[in-house]
Amino acid sequence: MKFARFAVNGTVKYGIVDGDQLREIRGDLFGDHTPTGTVYRLDAVKLLTPCVPSKILALGLNYALHVQESKRPMPKQPEPFFKVPSSLCHPGDPIVIPAGAGETHYEGELVVVIGKTAKRVSPEEALDYVFGYTCGNDVSVRPWQRGDLQWWRAKSSDTFAPLGPWIETEIPDPSRLTLETRLNGQVKQHTTTDQLLFNVPTTISFISQVVTLYPGDCIYTGTPEGVGPMDDGDTVEIEISGIGVLRNPVVREKE
Amino acid sequence: MKFARFAVNGTVKYGIVDGDQLREIRGDLFGDHTPTGTVYRLDAVKLLTPCVPSKILALGLNYALHVQESKRPMPKQPEPFFKVPSSLCHPGDPIVIPAGAGETHYEGELVVVIGKTAKRVSPEEALDYVFGYTCGNDVSVRPWQRGDLQWWRAKSSDTFAPLGPWIETEIPDPSRLTLETRLNGQVKQHTTTDQLLFNVPTTISFISQVVTLYPGDCIYTGTPEGVGPMDDGDTVEIEISGIGVLRNPVVREKE
Repeated sequence: MKFARFAVNGTVKYGIVDGDQLREIRGDLFGDHTPTGTVYRLDAVKLLTPCVPSKILALGLNYALHVQESKRPMPKQPEPFFKVPSSLCHPGDPIVIPAGAGETHYEGELVVVIGKTAKRVSPEEALDYVFGYTCGNDVSVRPWQRGDLQWWRAKSSDTFAPLGPWIETEIPDPSRLTLETRLNGQVKQHTTTDQLLFNVPTTISFISQVVTLYPGDCIYTGTPEGVGPMDDGDTVEIEISGIGVLRNPVVREKE
Repeated sequence: MKFARFAVNGTVKYGIVDGDQLREIRGDLFGDHTPTGTVYRLDAVKLLTPCVPSKILALGLNYALHVQESKRPMPKQPEPFFKVPSSLCHPGDPIVIPAGAGETHYEGELVVVIGKTAKRVSPEEALDYVFGYTCGNDVSVRPWQRGDLQWWRAKSSDTFAPLGPWIETEIPDPSRLTLETRLNGQVKQHTTTDQLLFNVPTTISFISQVVTLYPGDCIYTGTPEGVGPMDDGDTVEIEISGIGVLRNPVVREKE
């Protein structure tokens, strides 16, 4: 099922996407919830990021061809970093490149949404802790990424974590998906997720050895080759098979 | 005033520290709140981290003598990184060094607690956005800090962000404090906060240019010289003049 979070008349609600309709639910997205009987037209609501994570992890260097284009050594283990929740960007909302940022890239990614508290889970049991999957854009300012001690504003400036449009829960094997990033309709990234260097179970298990994951926490699983610049007036789409399309316009602030 | 968060019989409350008493308040810590009339003995409650931040920033390399002991070049601007909320550790609770971590250091720090949403504030107005100050320990696993692509588990493993014991709101000038770190009673770090390379107003202004700060968000302002290892059975105390003492025992998990 596809679970969405959305706003209607200033009220935030959750619902299940059913074709061009959205069936409202009540309760805990990650626990007990029931249909309310209220149905909205999907195009009549404002979609929000489908969950509100307490933290967001993202993987660097998790597709071999992207490691090569980045001219980095091949990683020996998953290489996580953090994006802060204040960088989340709703589906359809503009990615705002701040003044002074320089060259800024899209990075289309499969995002794992955790469903149950996970501490020291094994790779074999890791998928039991997944609620579902969505699309993410790990927006990255290259000069800041190179020049700063750590990746903070390079990847966590406000609006740098587009997420959505909803969470698909019926994906038994996250390594059999197709991911595509389009800039103004032109395909820039195209991969299948079996190319992940560290797959979803391995990644969850590795992180959870030392960092407890909570329901709603998100893991951006890394970007494939084909990253490149986006700028004022562009539109970026991340599409994952069986999930949907995350679409955001780009705005660059005046210097 | 000193604002504390605490637990009594499994219920979380807020209060104002008054000598050896704690006067319970009701309402929004960062907005309207009123005394309830209920008073607890301070030693009869369990103190918790004094706030629940949506994000935690910390500064690397923010005291000249620590930059020298780290054998790093002097920074040209504040160098933030993130610690995740799941790494928070209550006053008195053990810092747990996970199996396989290797040499792990204490880093005593002055922590800023934000009181109002801050986006693009100037250094001149930055202190208006501060709620108060507390003590923090930026626990750091050196081998992970050196070996990983980014500082995630090195500084955000569970329990790696001790914070407290409470928030002092009556500090007009955060550059006139004394910070001391003690390991088993022995002084290991001692500085005055006028030694910060980037002071509190400059830091808040710099971060808020691109990352919006929310009430309760915390900024660990960096550690002075004298960092060093701590291990199983140790007790670390961070004391800041006018605030109080943050004390945590250390446990190392068996390999």
